Formats: sequence, C-alpha cells, structure tokens
Amino acid sequence: MTASVSIIGAAGLSGLELIKRLARHPHVQLKHITSSKYQGQALAQVFPQFHGLDYTFEAHDCDRTGVDFAFLAVPNKASLELVPDLVKAGIRVIDLSGVYRIQNTQVFSQAYKLVHDSTDLLREAVFGLPEVNAKAIASARLIANPGCYPTGALLGLIPLGNLLNQLSTPPIIDAKSGVTGAGGRVEDDSTNYVNCNENFKAYKVFNHQHTPEIRQVLNQHTPYQGEVIFTPHLLPVDRGILSTIYLQFSQPQDPKQIRDQYAEFACNQPFVQLLPEGQTPEIKWVQHTNRCQIGLHVDPTGQRVIVITAIDNLVKGASGQAIQNLNLMLGCDQTLTL
Amino acid sequence: MTASVSIIGAAGLSGLELIKRLARHPHVQLKHITSSKYQGQALAQVFPQFHGLDYTFEAHDCDRTGVDFAFLAVPNKASLELVPDLVKAGIRVIDLSGVYRIQNTQVFSQAYKLVHDSTDLLREAVFGLPEVNAKAIASARLIANPGCYPTGALLGLIPLGNLLNQLSTPPIIDAKSGVTGAGGRVEDDSTNYVNCNENFKAYKVFNHQHTPEIRQVLNQHTPYQGEVIFTPHLLPVDRGILSTIYLQFSQPQDPKQIRDQYAEFACNQPFVQLLPEGQTPEIKWVQHTNRCQIGLHVDPTGQRVIVITAIDNLVKGASGQAIQNLNLMLGCDQTLTL
Amino acid sequence: MTASVSIIGAAGLSGLELIKRLARHPHVQLKHITSSKYQGQALAQVFPQFHGLDYTFEAHDCDRTGVDFAFLAVPNKASLELVPDLVKAGIRVIDLSGVYRIQNTQVFSQAYKLVHDSTDLLREAVFGLPEVNAKAIASARLIANPGCYPTGALLGLIPLGNLLNQLSTPPIIDAKSGVTGAGGRVEDDSTNYVNCNENFKAYKVFNHQHTPEIRQVLNQHTPYQGEVIFTPHLLPVDRGILSTIYLQFSQPQDPKQIRDQYAEFACNQPFVQLLPEGQTPEIKWVQHTNRCQIGLHVDPTGQRVIVITAIDNLVKGASGQAIQNLNLMLGCDQTLTL
Amino acid sequence: MTASVSIIGAAGLSGLELIKRLARHPHVQLKHITSSKYQGQALAQVFPQFHGLDYTFEAHDCDRTGVDFAFLAVPNKASLELVPDLVKAGIRVIDLSGVYRIQNTQVFSQAYKLVHDSTDLLREAVFGLPEVNAKAIASARLIANPGCYPTGALLGLIPLGNLLNQLSTPPIIDAKSGVTGAGGRVEDDSTNYVNCNENFKAYKVFNHQHTPEIRQVLNQHTPYQGEVIFTPHLLPVDRGILSTIYLQFSQPQDPKQIRDQYAEFACNQPFVQLLPEGQTPEIKWVQHTNRCQIGLHVDPTGQRVIVITAIDNLVKGASGQAIQNLNLMLGCDQTLTL
Repeated sequence: MTASVSIIGAAGLSGLELIKRLARHPHVQLKHITSSKYQGQALAQVFPQFHGLDYTFEAHDCDRTGVDFAFLAVPNKASLELVPDLVKAGIRVIDLSGVYRIQNTQVFSQAYKLVHDSTDLLREAVFGLPEVNAKAIASARLIANPGCYPTGALLGLIPLGNLLNQLSTPPIIDAKSGVTGAGGRVEDDSTNYVNCNENFKAYKVFNHQHTPEIRQVLNQHTPYQGEVIFTPHLLPVDRGILSTIYLQFSQPQDPKQIRDQYAEFACNQPFVQLLPEGQTPEIKWVQHTNRCQIGLHVDPTGQRVIVITAIDNLVKGASGQAIQNLNLMLGCDQTLTL
Repeated sequence: MTASVSIIGAAGLSGLELIKRLARHPHVQLKHITSSKYQGQALAQVFPQFHGLDYTFEAHDCDRTGVDFAFLAVPNKASLELVPDLVKAGIRVIDLSGVYRIQNTQVFSQAYKLVHDSTDLLREAVFGLPEVNAKAIASARLIANPGCYPTGALLGLIPLGNLLNQLSTPPIIDAKSGVTGAGGRVEDDSTNYVNCNENFKAYKVFNHQHTPEIRQVLNQHTPYQGEVIFTPHLLPVDRGILSTIYLQFSQPQDPKQIRDQYAEFACNQPFVQLLPEGQTPEIKWVQHTNRCQIGLHVDPTGQRVIVITAIDNLVKGASGQAIQNLNLMLGCDQTLTL
Repeated sequence: MTASVSIIGAAGLSGLELIKRLARHPHVQLKHITSSKYQGQALAQVFPQFHGLDYTFEAHDCDRTGVDFAFLAVPNKASLELVPDLVKAGIRVIDLSGVYRIQNTQVFSQAYKLVHDSTDLLREAVFGLPEVNAKAIASARLIANPGCYPTGALLGLIPLGNLLNQLSTPPIIDAKSGVTGAGGRVEDDSTNYVNCNENFKAYKVFNHQHTPEIRQVLNQHTPYQGEVIFTPHLLPVDRGILSTIYLQFSQPQDPKQIRDQYAEFACNQPFVQLLPEGQTPEIKWVQHTNRCQIGLHVDPTGQRVIVITAIDNLVKGASGQAIQNLNLMLGCDQTLTL
Repeated sequence: MTASVSIIGAAGLSGLELIKRLARHPHVQLKHITSSKYQGQALAQVFPQFHGLDYTFEAHDCDRTGVDFAFLAVPNKASLELVPDLVKAGIRVIDLSGVYRIQNTQVFSQAYKLVHDSTDLLREAVFGLPEVNAKAIASARLIANPGCYPTGALLGLIPLGNLLNQLSTPPIIDAKSGVTGAGGRVEDDSTNYVNCNENFKAYKVFNHQHTPEIRQVLNQHTPYQGEVIFTPHLLPVDRGILSTIYLQFSQPQDPKQIRDQYAEFACNQPFVQLLPEGQTPEIKWVQHTNRCQIGLHVDPTGQRVIVITAIDNLVKGASGQAIQNLNLMLGCDQTLTL
C-alpha cells in the first residue's frame, strides 16, 4: 500500500518538516511539493540541508491527478481558497492552517479577520488531535490539524476529565513558545534576531486566536463548559512550547487520583509521557520528537494543581501531528517516521 | 561627603555589578573588594573587562577600620556568620543574601535549610525595597536587599493596595528568569551551557524559597493576608526576569481605576515605568538598567487582570537595588550611578 | 562650552547607541534626533527602553539653525545626498556610513554600487580612527567614521609598523561579527532569528566592501603596500566582533620586540588594551564598551604571529568611536560618556 | 546478521548520541550501556528524552561475554586502561577518545599529558576516517575514531591531493566549534552558560591537541609533508563546527581543476557535499546529520583558495562517524541510521 501525497506550501518551516519525514515514509510516495516562491527550483538547491533528496518545487495548482492525500501548510487565506477544490477532487486533506478548527464562524472571523465561506466543510472537518479523535480521524476527508499552543494546552487539561467540573476559576495557561511557533520565517521585524535574542515577552494578552480553539475543544471533549485564560510568550529558542497550567479547585482533591488519571491517559498514547512525581518537563527533552511531556504537581492542600506540558511546536504542534493523522488515515502504525 | 565602602564577596556576578557602579559613584570611596577565591589578585587581571580599574581582591576578614558601609554578596551561610560582627563594628550593612528577609525563623529554616541565630538583628533588619520602605531604609543599620523574583512580583502587586482584598483566589506569579538569576556562575551542571541553551523549564514548583518572602512583604505592605502561588522558570538569556501575574477578582473592577493606581504609584518612583495600554514589557528593554517595567491588562469582564513586570535580575533584582538603598542611606539622589 | 548636536537617522541601532550616550554628555546639547520612519513620535514611546528621555523624532530636513555637529547614521545613499549640504551649512559632520572612507572612487563604486559625486569632500574627509588620526580629527570638518570590521582589523595590524614589510604573504583577517554588525535591524531574511540562532557561516568571501577600506588605511598608515585577505562570519550574538589575524613572516621575529611594539601603542591609547601573554580576548569582555582588546601570540619559530582583537561593533565599531571623534573635535577628554 | 554491541561511557554526549542511533540499527543488538555515574539506573529515568527505550546503565566492567563490538566514549585515561583488555577478549573496538590517533608516542604525550603503554595496539589501530580508510576500517580490530576538529579540517584539505605540494605557506585552519565540541557537559566553569552565551573567543592558540592529529593524517594521505596552523574558537551554539581554511599557492591555479577534484572526491562519498560555486556552508544545514558540507572559493588571481567545511561535531565529528565505521566493519550500507 502506497499513498500518493502532495505537500502544498512546502517551503515554510512546517512544509520542510513534512518533507523531511514523508520522504522516508514507507507507505508514502511524495508526489508534489509546491511553493509559489520557489516554483521550478530544486529543493536541495534552495535548502542545502536537503542534499540527497531529489524533489523540485511546483506551482500550487500543479496537476493533482492520482493524488490521495494533500497536506496544506499555507497561510489561512490560501487554505480557505484551496481546500474546497481539493476535497471536491476526492483528495483527503490535512490542513495545518487555522481555518477549519473553530466551528463558530463568528468566533472564527473575530479571531482570524477572515470570512468563512465553506461552512459545510467546516462542519465536516475533524479536529486532528489523535489522543481524543483517533476514530473520526481514521475515516475523515478533511482534518483540521490543531494549533501548536492548543496541542500543548489540551493534552495537559483533557486527562482531568470530570475533575474539571470542580474548578473554582478558569484554567490559566501560561505558554512560552520558541520563535518558529510565532511565525519564525516570516520576514517581519518581530522575529528579527536582535528583537528575539536575549529577550522575552508576552504578546496578544487576552487576545490570541488560539484561545477560542482551546476552549472549544475542551468544551467538546470534557464536561468543562467554561472559559480558559491563555497568555503566549516568545522564547529565544528555535523550537519548543512549554505550557504552565494553573488549576484552582473548589475542594481538595486526591493527588493519587489525579496522577492515576494522567497515567491512564498516557499509557494508551504512544506520544504522551507522564513524568514521575517531582520531575518537570524541559523543551530540550522533546525537541525534534512528536512527544508531549507532562509534569504534574499538586500542592499540599490538594486544591491547587500545576500541570506543565512540553512539545516541539513544529512536530507535535504541527507537522508531526499531521503525519500522525496521516498514519491513522492510512490505518498503519501511528508512530511511522515519528 | 564621601562614604568608605567594602564589597564583601566581590567576585560573583552581583559583586562585579556592584564594583562596576560603585567605582564611579561620586560619594563613594571603594575601600575593599574581597574574595576568598581571588584574594591577593588584581581585579583587572582576573576579570579583563575591568581594564583600567585598579583594585585588588582582599580576604573577607581584612582590616575594616574606617569603613562606613559594607555590601555583602556572599552565600547565605557566610552572610549569617559575617553580618553580626559588621553591625557590631558600627558598619551599616546592605546584605544581598536571603538571610535577613524572612522574619519568621521557622519559615526561614524550611526555605533555606539554615538555622538563624541572630534574631535581634533579624527583627531590626529593613527590607530594602525603596518603593515601599524608603524612609526606614534611610536610617537603617542593616538592609535585607530583596530577592530578584520578589522584586519583580512585589512591584507588580503592591500598587493594587486595597483591591487585593477583592481577589477570589491567590495571585499567581509565573516568573521567568535568565540564568544569572538562578545562580549563573555557580559551577554546577544545571547552569552548564548545553543544559540551558535552546531549553526552557520550570523548577522548584510549589517549593521556591522566594515564595514566603513575596507573601510576607505583600502581607505587610497591603491589606492582603493570603498566600501567593509562585512558579520560577529558567530562560536561556543572561539576565532579566519577566513575571506574568494573574489576578482573579470576585467582582468586576473599573479598569481605569486600576490603571490610575499603578500610574500614581509609578509617578513617584524613579525606577517604576508603567507602559501605555496595550503594550507589554520586554526584558531587553530593562537589561542593564535599574528599572521595573509594568504592563497592565484587564479583560473585558473586569474580573481578570494580568500584570506583567520586567526587571534586570542583577540590577533592580540585586546590585542596582542595593546601590539605590545606599543612595537613600547617604541621603543623596536615589538614581546615582543607576 | 556646549555644542549643539543633531543625530540624523537616530532610530537605527547606531543612532540609538548615539542617543544613549550623547543624552548624558556634559558638553552636548542634543538638539535633534531624526527618523523618516518615526518622525513626529516620541522616542520613549517607540523605544520604551528610553523611558525618561524626552526627545521626539523629527524629519531629516528639520531646521538646523545653530547646529554645530551632525552625526549621520543613515544608509550610504542618504549619506551621499545629505553630507554636502550639511558641510556647506558650516556643520561639522561625523558620518557613520561607508561613503567617505574609500578615497579611490572606482574602488568605492565597485564596493558600494554607488557613484560618488562629492570628490572634493571625499579628499577632505578624515578617516576617524583616533588611534592614528587624532590630530587631523581635531580640526576636521568631515569625519568618515570607520567601519566595524576595519576598526578591529586595523587596531590589530597597525602596531606592527615596519615589521609588516617582512610579511611573506598578505595578512589574513578571519573576522566574526554579531548580528548587529551585519545589519541587525534591517528587515530581511538573513537576520531573521531562525536563520541566525544556533547557526554560523561565512559570507561575502573574497568580496566584502570593507576589504578595500582595511587595505587603504593599512597602506596609508604603515609601510605595508600589499593586499589583505578578509573573511567575515556571522555569529549568533547581538554584538561584538572578534578578528583572528594570521601573519606569516619571511624571517623569525623577536617575540619580545613584537610585544613591546603593541604595548607601546596601547599605553598611549585609552581604549586599546593589550592582554598579558597567553590570554585571548573575549567579546563578552568588551561588550557595551569602547575598548579594543588585543591578544598576541607568537609561535615557537617566531615566523608566525596570531593577533586577536575584540571590539563591540556598535560602540568602538560605530557610535562609540563617533563620540570619541566628537570629543577630539571638541578638544575635551576622549573618554567622555565612553 | 545481528552484532552484539556495548557502549562504554554511554551517559556523555557522544554516548547518548550513540544510543539514539544504535537503538534503531537493524543489525545491532545493543547489549550494554555503561556509566560509572549512573550505574544501576534506567536510561529513561536519568534522561527523560529517551522515553520508550528500555535500557539500564551498567558498570564499565560488566560481563561482556558474547559482545562483538564495543564503542568507547570515555575520557582518554579510561580508554588507555580499557582498550587492551577488550581487544584481547576478541571484541572489535571503536574508540572515540584521542588515545589511538597519534602514532608518535612522544607527540602523543606532549599533546595529551599521558604516557602510552600499548604501542603494539597503537600501531595496529586504524584511523577511522571512512573517506580515506574505508578498506582498512572494514577489517580492523581497533578503530581510532577521528577528533571532531580533524574531521572538518581533513575533509576540506585531502581532496586537494598533489596540489598541496604547491602551497607556499602551511594551510591555516580557523575553526569554530559549538560548546559540545569543547567538552559541553563537563562541569567546569568554561562551559557555564554565562561564560559562553553572547560570547566568542579563541582558545589554546598554537597549542591544541588536535593539531598533530591533523598534520599526521594529512602527511599520510597526501603528498604534503609540512605543518598546519590550527586555531579553535568557541561558538555559542550547542553543536556544529565550521572550519575556514586558508591556502596560499606559489603559482596561480586553475579554479576549474580545483573544483573538479573536490567534486570527484565528493561524488564517491555519501556524506560529503560540495556546495555550488558562490555558496558557503552553514552549521544549521548539517546539524543532526553525518554530512560534511564544503564551500570552495578561489580568488581572482588563482593563488588563494578558501575552503569552508561544516560538520556536526557530535555526529560526523564523533558518534555518527563511529557508526559509519561500524557499518563498514559489518559490511553493510555505510549510511544505516545516519
């Protein structure tokens, strides 16, 4: 069994990470890599780190006859335009943009400053977080690949399940991301070296487009129906997201029960790792992997819990998760090339 | 007026920062710099960046006749031993260690794993945060110079004053510090380059010795009598602390009133800078300065406030603040050499 | 005595470094800071790190009546256009661009891809390296402030004097610069964080515009009339240039004589520091200073010498040196504000 | 075919890199990983990034019955002690230390401050640079795995072959290494974060132990019998070595012939990549790979050539190359797991 695959928008950071892994996937024939900027140029010429891989960038609208799967790693606007035609052509789509994640189109418009005109597809799209949606992913035509921040936040919160109903205040997610998680290769001032190096700051306080995504998925997959508070920060590292999540319960909880819930969640998931008591995750421990590391800390009163998760934003937070979704759609081992 | 000053423990990062500034202080004669490791060696020979400054490291127990002020930048244990004799000798002491900050000796012992045997001096010691204690500092014999994390946390919380009584849950301080704030030049594995670079992690979750210091000062200088939740993280930068502080109120607050309180607090303090609405602090904006930058964010409901502060841990968080204290004790302009 | 000073192009990295120091210069009244991008905006609003300084960016062509000195920190093309009018208006100019450094207009055109149309001024311009040109600088109308790489290279080579005639091959200058020395805040892809961080590379091999500048000044100020080989590299740090200079002599040299020549050169210069035998410079030792540190290494045969110099490219390599030139022109202490 | 393999000294940076790759090698059964420090502890417990790999550190002197190959990643002194017994026991050894590289024991003693007492084994040891020694490696009992700096230098010089006889002065190798190439996890002050970050310096000028190794191998594998000049520098990155090599010929050379020689050399080697004219290597392009990238620059006169090479010091400069050697010894594809 070999699937024919296109990567649309292959010259960005997520696209390159997809190429690196799909090029050696045993069940994938990488048929197209596309780029509007580098169309017609050889991959290894533009990106010498790909020495030995013989692909050439094509136009986004290249002939897709016979293509089974398309990964989209293009800006939101381009995704809005491209996805419907791809699905119509019978191609199964894994969309790494934010366009098919938020079900409420008003909330979407406010978060992304775009109008959604494919509401049927939006309803059909499956949120591609394998740890909660594996079955639906397997048969989906369109996957909304999760955002990097939501991935780290949700994997830290979902294992709590019913306990979330006992929160006295909304969960607080204080997240810190490497520069590639904040649009690293975009050529704007904010990701310039001298503005990031030896620096650290919060951004989009009370106002980041991933907040409604986290809330929606949490509301769908747990009994918790409230808000979340989410603050992103910019770390001077290439890749990695660490999320420190603060939970305040109205009643003391049993630390052992909490840990058991996380352990049970993790033991069924190849990419979720619960650290032993007292240990905290480090982003260096997950870089270049598809893993989500979880540290769990309960205070002596049992009323406050701090959950810390670490992922690589370009792998579990983007391209690795997209391939994990592909693996589920192909019915093969989730961990292939990951 | 010229004060004769000793820096005891001058070869650490805080000590070197003290030398750099005190050497050009118009009212200071820098009489001794001491170091057990480099005793007898010239400053500029050991640290070539001090080219042009003609000092030689002496032993800690050098002859202190005629010394008016002593800065202590030694480990906690050494401070416990040295301070009483200095005070007894009539020398006014600014202690950068943690030894004279926490008034409750049991809490101190638990936090620092040391027994306090100078309880009289402890009661007398003035917590050296000029923004709340300027008057007591001016006449103090012994200053407990604040910890770096407490400085950033307290300057973000204290301006709230009475409003802190309306919190529904304890303030959460999610703090991120450069490596020098976590014992940078100590020769242990955790501050090795390959363990810090391209990395990020939390440490001492629910268990950092600065937590009781923050709580105590907050309880003393505001009506708030509850706990604080404090989580330190290690940033891959040399210097700087950014503290993201989460406040949950039981009732909606007036955003304008909150901003006014911070503005009023800031306008009386030469080193406190309230940023305009919508702007967030960056540690690069405060590095090598004695400033505390404050960003203030109120959510649309008025029930949640995020305060973000940025300081340089070696300046406002240690040596700069110590010199600010000296300036108050000398009765001269607080900002000299800062 | 107070000079009235304009900084034209004050919002770039060199301009900001000039503001920081000139704002506290005892003999300077900072009359204008100009920026085409930020014209009309307050300095501290655009750059919050300048909190407390009350300046507003003006247009480049603001009224310059009464201005004594102008610093130009604008692109080469803008400098070509602005300098003649300023000089004509009787304003003494310190130009930080590359436009007035190379005397041969053909070489200039090849290096800078620009045509020089002010050849009279070019002939009059004084190369602003105080260590060799102090007297001419003092009375100059127009200073060509040296390039950052040339400053580090020349201060490592010029002390050799007549010995340069005994080289058997041209000096090789292997230079490594922080990102600000390679156009740090320019918004192009090459200085994007993810392209610089955890990376290192050479650029413009055999082809950098500073090569003819180094050669010309070396030919003018020493008996050496040959070429130089210069290779710049991009370091993942904010600021600093380390130049490793390889010299091959046709005959064995006396190590002591060489060291004596450097020592004699250094002892007359407030900003040149010769390190003791065996010690090598570090860029961290010169960051934020106007110093040039020199390490000197002679091999056992005496035929090969390695000279290593370190400077801060934004200080001694740009704005610091410009202020050193101003101090000479004002007839005051060279080291004021440095 | 499956070889039984021990990694002795598996808890250092090279050892961990060996585990990561050998654990998924199709022809390897990883039988022991040893560590004196972590003996008895589980790999994934000490190093959480190895989650999912089920190995436990054993003592160095664990029972080695049935072991076919041993990788030694221990300090030089330990290697001197351990290698003879391993070889005597019929185990084929790949030694990553410096002990079996330099054939002249006097030169060795001077470089390493150790006395060599296994001169028979020393004579028998094969220098494990596959690009020049593939045949001898295939049948060797003892491999001296090359140093990281020598690997980058030699692959930049050896392709020149006979042309090296026309040099007018010795090759100059100006090399810059990430911190792991300079003993990254060693717990000493020089690799502390605050001493490396935002810093850059040369070290061991005219005096590094890799100089005789480079010279010896160059003398053996090319007609060149002279010296080399080698200067190492410390880069603020985790991994990667960039070597800028300066060659001065007595006569002008044909640029095309030089390029052809490098191209021919590269086309036979899976891990050598010659970049197109005008392009220079970047360490980011080779990180985490076993590749050596080469940039080739000839000046207009044809008398000066600059060769720039980039490798990952932990892969091609250490563990990757060791596995490449293993692959040759096993008679399988050189590139397995690389």
